[in-house]
Amino acid sequence: MSARVPVTPIAAADIAAYDHETDVLVVGYGCAGAAAALDADAAGAEVILLERQSGGGGSSALSGGEMYLGGGTPIQRACGFDDTAEDMEKFLLAALGPDADQEKVGLYCRDSVAHYEWLTGHGVPFKPSLWDSPTWVPPTDDGLMWMGENAYPFNTIATPAPRGHRVTSDGFGGKVLMAVLSEAVGRTGIRVHTDTAALRLIVDGNRVVGVAARHFGDTVTYRARRGVVLTTGGFADNAEMVAQHAPQLVGLGVNSDGGDDGRGIVIAQAAGAAVKHMSAGQVGISLVPGMMVRGMIVNEVGQRFINEDVYPGLVGQAALFKHNLRVWVILDEQAYEEVPEDERWGVRPHFVAESLAELEQEIGMPEGALHTTVGEYNRHAEHGADPYFHKSARWLRPLRSPFAAIDVRRGMAPPEYGDGGTAGGGAEVFTIGGLHTSVDGHVLDLDGAPIPGLFAAGRATSGLHSWGYISGTSLGDGTFFGRRAGRAAARR
Amino acid sequence: MSARVPVTPIAAADIAAYDHETDVLVVGYGCAGAAAALDADAAGAEVILLERQSGGGGSSALSGGEMYLGGGTPIQRACGFDDTAEDMEKFLLAALGPDADQEKVGLYCRDSVAHYEWLTGHGVPFKPSLWDSPTWVPPTDDGLMWMGENAYPFNTIATPAPRGHRVTSDGFGGKVLMAVLSEAVGRTGIRVHTDTAALRLIVDGNRVVGVAARHFGDTVTYRARRGVVLTTGGFADNAEMVAQHAPQLVGLGVNSDGGDDGRGIVIAQAAGAAVKHMSAGQVGISLVPGMMVRGMIVNEVGQRFINEDVYPGLVGQAALFKHNLRVWVILDEQAYEEVPEDERWGVRPHFVAESLAELEQEIGMPEGALHTTVGEYNRHAEHGADPYFHKSARWLRPLRSPFAAIDVRRGMAPPEYGDGGTAGGGAEVFTIGGLHTSVDGHVLDLDGAPIPGLFAAGRATSGLHSWGYISGTSLGDGTFFGRRAGRAAARR
Repeated sequence: MSARVPVTPIAAADIAAYDHETDVLVVGYGCAGAAAALDADAAGAEVILLERQSGGGGSSALSGGEMYLGGGTPIQRACGFDDTAEDMEKFLLAALGPDADQEKVGLYCRDSVAHYEWLTGHGVPFKPSLWDSPTWVPPTDDGLMWMGENAYPFNTIATPAPRGHRVTSDGFGGKVLMAVLSEAVGRTGIRVHTDTAALRLIVDGNRVVGVAARHFGDTVTYRARRGVVLTTGGFADNAEMVAQHAPQLVGLGVNSDGGDDGRGIVIAQAAGAAVKHMSAGQVGISLVPGMMVRGMIVNEVGQRFINEDVYPGLVGQAALFKHNLRVWVILDEQAYEEVPEDERWGVRPHFVAESLAELEQEIGMPEGALHTTVGEYNRHAEHGADPYFHKSARWLRPLRSPFAAIDVRRGMAPPEYGDGGTAGGGAEVFTIGGLHTSVDGHVLDLDGAPIPGLFAAGRATSGLHSWGYISGTSLGDGTFFGRRAGRAAARR
Repeated sequence: MSARVPVTPIAAADIAAYDHETDVLVVGYGCAGAAAALDADAAGAEVILLERQSGGGGSSALSGGEMYLGGGTPIQRACGFDDTAEDMEKFLLAALGPDADQEKVGLYCRDSVAHYEWLTGHGVPFKPSLWDSPTWVPPTDDGLMWMGENAYPFNTIATPAPRGHRVTSDGFGGKVLMAVLSEAVGRTGIRVHTDTAALRLIVDGNRVVGVAARHFGDTVTYRARRGVVLTTGGFADNAEMVAQHAPQLVGLGVNSDGGDDGRGIVIAQAAGAAVKHMSAGQVGISLVPGMMVRGMIVNEVGQRFINEDVYPGLVGQAALFKHNLRVWVILDEQAYEEVPEDERWGVRPHFVAESLAELEQEIGMPEGALHTTVGEYNRHAEHGADPYFHKSARWLRPLRSPFAAIDVRRGMAPPEYGDGGTAGGGAEVFTIGGLHTSVDGHVLDLDGAPIPGLFAAGRATSGLHSWGYISGTSLGDGTFFGRRAGRAAARR
């Protein structure tokens, strides 16, 4: 339905009377919306929070629940790590680049411990124990994990410390995060209007003064005396927008609650907003990091292309953007057996062979491809070295017959991963780009000037990132910059 | 100066009197602008053509002068090739994708022979002789060249025919093309206003009715009774726009006349226009295709990554987007000697060694990297095969000592290539994305509806392309869709 409703703003003069009025109107009840509403409320503003689903949560509630925090949080210290904001900043600028947002990254790192305190103050639980092996999400309830800080080249750029703060949970932690933030919202006077989809902005000249929304069959209008905060998520569910702005993500599975249709981005653009980095995407691929790190990942001609101990999201980006997802995990029996049962996610190899020549043939790789790659890998691994990609010696061991291979495109995701693994051809993506905002959440126009009355945060915006992506930086910058946007909007 | 002038449109009500009036105002005198002006004039409209430089030409005049044409042009037939629009279309959809513009590609291919006739009718010269080896631009005046149609995987997707029509010239052909089109413009009543930079659109409601421009120190206003056609080029010269939309192109050399500042794109956006594919870029890398095809191209760990006989622009995109430009051409003495003198562009190897172990060490590659890669290459080349990347048997031969290497980032471009090779770290780029237009050049808004009075063509628009790029498709779609935009704007 929303596709047929124009995205152009409605003139305030055409609104006879508003159905609802408030100081701050927050649109979208994921983590960024919750944070914006909470801090706008704390700043003394009257707040209404719109959500088009029947309850809050959004894509945030379906996420793993990682929050990228550092600079010396209590969890880091309890696990024995001294961290600094400077090292955190160096890591993020490298991992989220090229050309990540220096101002946002700097502020995010300097205020990270304070943001941790805000989260725990609202009741978000983190457990002071480290999961010390590459993974998407720990199979335990450990609260701290590496996001590749200890892998090449990042370990040469900044002193490594684990900064993946994982909300304590049985399984994925996003639902816990959103349950806690929703309880916090419930303790305030914030009014939550569910089943209400914002469709158009209302403008008075160039000032945004409200929103027209759909509540079941009806149009409902909201006046926001101080500001509208868009926290509507990305556009991964909008196939047309993906094709126009992020062609490399076309046709893949989507990691979202199904509502990341980009509407918030486009209605802001129609009111003059600029966007940034619309081509960037996070790429979750369906492989088990514990298997990959003990073996190797190769492309369709059997070449390795990355150190397998790096954060798996960076492997996913490389696999999609550089190798068209035609990638295989190669391992041997010993490597498979060494992966603890609870880290296997039920995955078994698609190919098993006594020799690499057989394995090449079964997969359909050039004759000699795996023989050459594994030969070189083993020759150096004997000496604990990986001069090609610098995987840590911890994971280096010559691979021996019998061998096995996992075809990432076949999708091997168990239910915990959602069905994107199979439906999406081995990958689940979401978009990283969006509205161009200041560090205070002001949506900027094409001249770089704030659009009066309009704010945004979360995946509706281009956040810390340029092209790269590390998990925890969506919940992280969504809540961090959501709070700033809420406070800025609450100002008279 | 233009950076400080707001991009928001001026209301027509604020213009007391216009300095100039015309039916159709074309902004930008490159190939798209010339074509738009000529066909608007032919359709009976009064035309003014604005150009901010002191003369026409733009980036088009600095280009190689290739025009991608096919479907059975007289030049193709004279060289012995039967081609069809269907094969041309299949090739372009594959080479310009993923998700190239099917409607534009289909129309472009079906009308390609007619467009050839239009070009030659205006005096554009093409010579009926084939240059039959991979190159950026033939060192001869041959008028037809392959653009990788005969290379894998394209030779499995469509029946190959060479479609690179090269404007006859001593060296780069762009200047000849623009000289001929400028002469054609001179034979009409089209008024050309040079030294006139369009800075803002003038709008009456949502209709574009004119342009405010700068002529030396003065603001000059133009009223366009029927339409404004933006043919202002891409945004490769605008570092801020590149960082926001195409982060992978940041910091590289630029292939332009220096004026591709994206202003036309942004002033249209500020009037409601949508954009597409802003992250895409053409990547010219400083290597000699004749050397590469006889040897190999490898990344920083000595891996091949593409068949070296494909169109070199696709090698450039792979080198930049997948291997961060850390690529080397590896060849042997025989390969170097076999490259005809006039195809060498004065380039000599940066490294020479008797053994591959020495060469690895000199370049700084992992021990064993080139030994492994060249070993596999030679083993298969003995049998005329390249199971890894399917380079044609014509170019396959085992490489033997002494060996040599060329570091692409060092830049080895002779003057004919401009100074981007050295200044830009081995690559010269330009942007491919831009305004979202219909096949008739209507600029579309965020709802997909035409913005009344606003048209565009050339690199200010997203043309045939999505992510991929083949030379000849800029002059090609610039002139082809420029003509259509000019005719559409001329309609009352």
